[in-house]
Amino acid sequence: MNKKTDFLKHKAYRLRRLVLQMTTKAGSGHATSCLSCAEIMAMLFFDVMCFDPDNYENPNNDRFILSKGHAAPILYAIWHELGKVSQKELFSYRTLGSSLEGHPTRRFLYTECATGSLGIGLSVGVGESLYAKMESLTYKTFVLLGDSELSEGSIWESVFIAAQYKLDNLVAIIDMNRLGQSTETMFANHAEKYKVLFAACGWHPIVVKNGHDIVLLKQAFAESVSITGKPVVIIADTIKGYGVTFAENKNGFHGKAFDEEQLSTILPELETRFSDAVSEPDFSWEPLLPPNIAVQKQKKIQLIQKPSELFKEKKIPTRKAFGIVLAELGTLNECVVSLDAEVKNSTYAEIFESAHPNRFFQCFVAEQNMIGSAIGFASRGAVPFVSTFSCFLSRAFDQIRMAAIGTAAIKIVGSHAGVSIGQDGPSQMGLEDIAMMKTVQNSVIFYPCDAISTAKVMNVMLQYNDGICYLRTTREATEVIYNDSHEFELGGFQVLKKSQQDMVVIIAAGVTVFESLKAYEMLQKEEMFVRVIDLYCVKPLNAETLTAEIRASNGKVVIVEDHYKDGGIGESIMATLCNKLFYFEHLGIFEIPTSGSQEEQRRFHQIDAKAIVEAVKQVANK
Amino acid sequence: MNKKTDFLKHKAYRLRRLVLQMTTKAGSGHATSCLSCAEIMAMLFFDVMCFDPDNYENPNNDRFILSKGHAAPILYAIWHELGKVSQKELFSYRTLGSSLEGHPTRRFLYTECATGSLGIGLSVGVGESLYAKMESLTYKTFVLLGDSELSEGSIWESVFIAAQYKLDNLVAIIDMNRLGQSTETMFANHAEKYKVLFAACGWHPIVVKNGHDIVLLKQAFAESVSITGKPVVIIADTIKGYGVTFAENKNGFHGKAFDEEQLSTILPELETRFSDAVSEPDFSWEPLLPPNIAVQKQKKIQLIQKPSELFKEKKIPTRKAFGIVLAELGTLNECVVSLDAEVKNSTYAEIFESAHPNRFFQCFVAEQNMIGSAIGFASRGAVPFVSTFSCFLSRAFDQIRMAAIGTAAIKIVGSHAGVSIGQDGPSQMGLEDIAMMKTVQNSVIFYPCDAISTAKVMNVMLQYNDGICYLRTTREATEVIYNDSHEFELGGFQVLKKSQQDMVVIIAAGVTVFESLKAYEMLQKEEMFVRVIDLYCVKPLNAETLTAEIRASNGKVVIVEDHYKDGGIGESIMATLCNKLFYFEHLGIFEIPTSGSQEEQRRFHQIDAKAIVEAVKQVANK
Repeated sequence: MNKKTDFLKHKAYRLRRLVLQMTTKAGSGHATSCLSCAEIMAMLFFDVMCFDPDNYENPNNDRFILSKGHAAPILYAIWHELGKVSQKELFSYRTLGSSLEGHPTRRFLYTECATGSLGIGLSVGVGESLYAKMESLTYKTFVLLGDSELSEGSIWESVFIAAQYKLDNLVAIIDMNRLGQSTETMFANHAEKYKVLFAACGWHPIVVKNGHDIVLLKQAFAESVSITGKPVVIIADTIKGYGVTFAENKNGFHGKAFDEEQLSTILPELETRFSDAVSEPDFSWEPLLPPNIAVQKQKKIQLIQKPSELFKEKKIPTRKAFGIVLAELGTLNECVVSLDAEVKNSTYAEIFESAHPNRFFQCFVAEQNMIGSAIGFASRGAVPFVSTFSCFLSRAFDQIRMAAIGTAAIKIVGSHAGVSIGQDGPSQMGLEDIAMMKTVQNSVIFYPCDAISTAKVMNVMLQYNDGICYLRTTREATEVIYNDSHEFELGGFQVLKKSQQDMVVIIAAGVTVFESLKAYEMLQKEEMFVRVIDLYCVKPLNAETLTAEIRASNGKVVIVEDHYKDGGIGESIMATLCNKLFYFEHLGIFEIPTSGSQEEQRRFHQIDAKAIVEAVKQVANK
Repeated sequence: MNKKTDFLKHKAYRLRRLVLQMTTKAGSGHATSCLSCAEIMAMLFFDVMCFDPDNYENPNNDRFILSKGHAAPILYAIWHELGKVSQKELFSYRTLGSSLEGHPTRRFLYTECATGSLGIGLSVGVGESLYAKMESLTYKTFVLLGDSELSEGSIWESVFIAAQYKLDNLVAIIDMNRLGQSTETMFANHAEKYKVLFAACGWHPIVVKNGHDIVLLKQAFAESVSITGKPVVIIADTIKGYGVTFAENKNGFHGKAFDEEQLSTILPELETRFSDAVSEPDFSWEPLLPPNIAVQKQKKIQLIQKPSELFKEKKIPTRKAFGIVLAELGTLNECVVSLDAEVKNSTYAEIFESAHPNRFFQCFVAEQNMIGSAIGFASRGAVPFVSTFSCFLSRAFDQIRMAAIGTAAIKIVGSHAGVSIGQDGPSQMGLEDIAMMKTVQNSVIFYPCDAISTAKVMNVMLQYNDGICYLRTTREATEVIYNDSHEFELGGFQVLKKSQQDMVVIIAAGVTVFESLKAYEMLQKEEMFVRVIDLYCVKPLNAETLTAEIRASNGKVVIVEDHYKDGGIGESIMATLCNKLFYFEHLGIFEIPTSGSQEEQRRFHQIDAKAIVEAVKQVANK
């Protein structure tokens, strides 16, 4: 026991020394934020967590999430001490090309998710804990939180959900170092305030009066893993900058690396101050390996072969098709899970819930935690589909952004897109969602118009692993226009109408496909021929194939979409093809809508058949 | 007293009857969510709040915010009962052109902000309460919350901040009707859980065991206005659908209007059940007028005339210029306030804080509440500037979206834009912010490259009242290239270099302006002449003046920006001018960046001078 304690003290000393050296060498980085959690990190990795350092993906490994991502150096230093990061790699921290970035991304192999935007780690931890419960896996998830980030609402969404699901396999540790970036935190170092608050939220709180005391930490962690029925939070009273006397517990040192000159006095001082911890004690550390009962599941994806068998009605909303297809995909693939933000009867995630209740997770009205939890599920090998109204996804934009940075393969479904929802008014309309999903990198956006294409693109979504996929669905029932033989792919589109004498091509998606088909009929009566394209894949665009269709249509294009013109489908197409000498007309939502019926909305915003006909005539004369 | 009680019961009856009629006529709407709060609303407007119905903008009026915006019909019904909304207008609810939308917007005159996305009202209330404290106004702010929205993290950001600022002029009322849209809420009707939780957050909680009992409500409100030093929450146990027996306290009736046939039995039943409340009692209600000591401040805006006097250095980061200018604008204009999300030493809002500490509000790391509070400040007549890292504004996208829907004149400042921040990595880089700000309607986006232009565009921001303004600032110091005589305006740009023989025009903004100027010098040495444009106003674009400059530059354009290409500046320009037969080359961030120095970043992503030179040469040959 004493030797182990000495060993842990030594590790904390080593971590301190390394993070100081790394940040000084990089010339930037959050040294003081690492110094406050050195003992906590040493304890977690060398005493508390059961994991196999040689097999990070062992499904029974305890998981660790560094929610205070700016303390990245100490995470890298840990894996150096575990023998997985070389000295050279360690000191490549923050240099171009290094996987040891300023804040962790998944380019660093030993991390669950990208962090660095505060308030996200706990939600990922909730997802990983829910996954363990679902799969009856024994691992625990440990999340290290900064105290500054406890003012982020997203944290409290996760706190409530963790209690609701009784996640006794989740342990949060608060590195309560009192100081934020520029000022004291709201609760400062009043551990009792946190204790009462977490208890009120249904958690089991444990206060550690000195978060630099290995013995006290040991007691707290021992208690933490013994609790059942509740998630646990360890509130560790720490000192920011601990070990660098002149910076300890002082404002003004956040996110600052010490310079070489400072370091030349800091390191000797550190050695003197922690003199009993400098030498490696005679202790042979062995990792606490997890029980090796679980094997990593093979994620063999089964696709839906004949979507037509799933749909009986001739008209069906794509949101309902989503629910039906998701349930079927869930039957074919055990890895599929569904998370919904308390609108399952609107998104139709309830169909999945009925079929697979143990893989459906009610996330209540808390979109941020929902996206974060999905990252956690994906990290552990599940394929999560999250659903809510498309407009409310904006609540979780930062989480979506961070999911993309971490190339989390999550599937996001936004229903009630566009003004076509009708009377509920602009707050309920997804009119910015495409812009939001488009700007994050490696994202894929599908916006199918009917049930069959919804099923087909969901097949594609299931196989996409390089980032987020977004599926945009519609409230109203739309006609089923495709059959099982139609093929749908990344960057694809369907040419619904074409002739040798097409004067204009109409590019539509979702509800405007039907308005375009109506426009086609109206124009045909006047012997005007147009090509009609269903751009079911909004991102990525295939510039080459689109160009060919436009060339064959006289180089004239009408784009019509139920999204704000700013940042919508049209902008992408026009920007992509702006050098092709084509002529474009763009119909889309041009001002904040008000309440009104679906038809009134489409008329007012000029995205209905009549407006399309007028645009075609105008463009044809250009 | 008894007569007053009878009168309030009668009003609750009237409200119930009206919302049932309105929603049935509209064929949609949230009837049952109104029925649970009829007594609360009757109490607030006819017994508790001091306000002048004839002068909504009286600065001493108590304010009311309907955070559960789906209960809009009951707000409209209240103002009908107050004589301000005609019968005809009332029944125009949810029809095209009516200001009585499905969820309230500011097109309805008697509202503080747009609501309908849950979890926003309390943050607006925090802003209004902070404003009252700042201005020593006596009004109180009442916020009606649904219980479903208490799972939104944004609510808890506001709860913490309200306690931190000891907002005893803020009263939240929870309409605890137990049921959400599709399921029971997490805390169901366990009022004690809410009580303990709010108490732990530093609030004074009051439980009303029957939220339909006028006498109990009266006691609670009396207590609420007597509390000092703490915000108050009234937790009212109510029944969803109260008054419609078959729908009461049952799932499946959320957001559903009853049809005419149902209404024909509901209304008689209502009459029988509330028989003692049907007739108007003999009671002459008079509004509780507020003390008339305050007068609405005239918001006469003073602009900065000579920005050059504010800056001493030759090089200065635009983020620092922002801080300096904000402090000066604060000196000139008492209405200017600053809200910062715990990064004041990075955004330089700390300069304003030093100059005007009583008008600076530390919002901690809670971006959602910060934006919501800014809406509240703006609603009461202040001019709020909110600041944080540009990337972290994504955390509050929904609030920004709702601010835009409510045409709130708030000024948002995002620092640390682009890969040019260097080593911190992608989580800290604003690379999606322009896309986000662009897609919301009536927004203005400024991205100045130097200190003088920062000051000048902030003058313009101060005068813009039609929606949100976004200012994008840079981390690194940039040369001051403008002087006081340069003019900056909405839709404007500066032509920095021009000649008669320009072969290409380079359009840049922010840091890329300087790379473009370097490229200009490099090209000049090879006797290649290019026009250089500083597009300091990213939105709105002036297509006409831009077209003229491009025409004069041979119709060839290189756009270079430090933002993802998807959704950035280039996409807007190319989409706007796609029919002009120009030739475009677009340089921008094309993949998720990693850590690296500023120069390395710009080189890798090909937005530096060298890349611009290459692009110009390529474009010139097209």
